[in-house]
Amino acid sequence: MFEKDLNIGYLLDFYGELLSARKRTVMDMYFNEDFSLAEIAEQIGISRQGVRDIIKKSEEELLFYEEKLGLASKLQVATARVDELCSMARSANVSEDIQVKLEALAKLIGQ
Amino acid sequence: MFEKDLNIGYLLDFYGELLSARKRTVMDMYFNEDFSLAEIAEQIGISRQGVRDIIKKSEEELLFYEEKLGLASKLQVATARVDELCSMARSANVSEDIQVKLEALAKLIGQ
Repeated sequence: MFEKDLNIGYLLDFYGELLSARKRTVMDMYFNEDFSLAEIAEQIGISRQGVRDIIKKSEEELLFYEEKLGLASKLQVATARVDELCSMARSANVSEDIQVKLEALAKLIGQ
Repeated sequence: MFEKDLNIGYLLDFYGELLSARKRTVMDMYFNEDFSLAEIAEQIGISRQGVRDIIKKSEEELLFYEEKLGLASKLQVATARVDELCSMARSANVSEDIQVKLEALAKLIGQ
C-alpha cells in the first residue's frame, strides 16, 4: 500500500524548489491538487509505477534536505512560538506596536 | 583578484551540510579557519587553482540554494525583528514570561 505522508506535503512547500521540474510537477499534482496515481500517470503519459517511483525518489530527496538542514522543523517550532507570543501579548494587553510587530513576524516566518 | 565574500560565509553556515565533504572541508578552511589558498592547497594536496575552483563551485552551489529557497535571508530578517522585539519588550517592561519567550525565540531562530 502506498500511503500519502502529509509531512511530505509540508517539506514539499519548503524544499520543492530544489526538485527537478518533472518531480515538482508530479509532487504538486499528488500532494497539492490531490490527483490519484492513475490520473497523474495519464496526464503526464507514464505508467502508474513510473509515477510511484518519481514520488518515492522525490520524498527521499525532500527528507534528505530536511535531515541535512532541519529548517522546516525549526520554522514549524518558531511559528508555533510566535503564535503563542501573539496571543500572550493580546491577553496581557501589551502596547500595540509590539503586537503589530509580533504579527508581522508571524506572517514572515509562516510564509 | 579572488575576493572573499562574507555573505558566502553566512550561506555556508546555512547550507554547508548540502555540500560534498570535500567542498565543505575546503570552504570551512577558507571561510571559518581563514587559511590562504596556498595553505589549503598544501594541506589537501591539490593546486591553488584546484582550491580556487572548488571554492568557486561551492559558492555557486550555495547561491543556488539561497536563490531557490531564500531561507537564509528570511531568517536574517526574522532574527533582526526578534532582536528588536526583545529590546522593545524590555523597554516597555512587559511581563517577564513574554520577555523570556521572546529571548528563547531569538535563540532558536539565530542558531
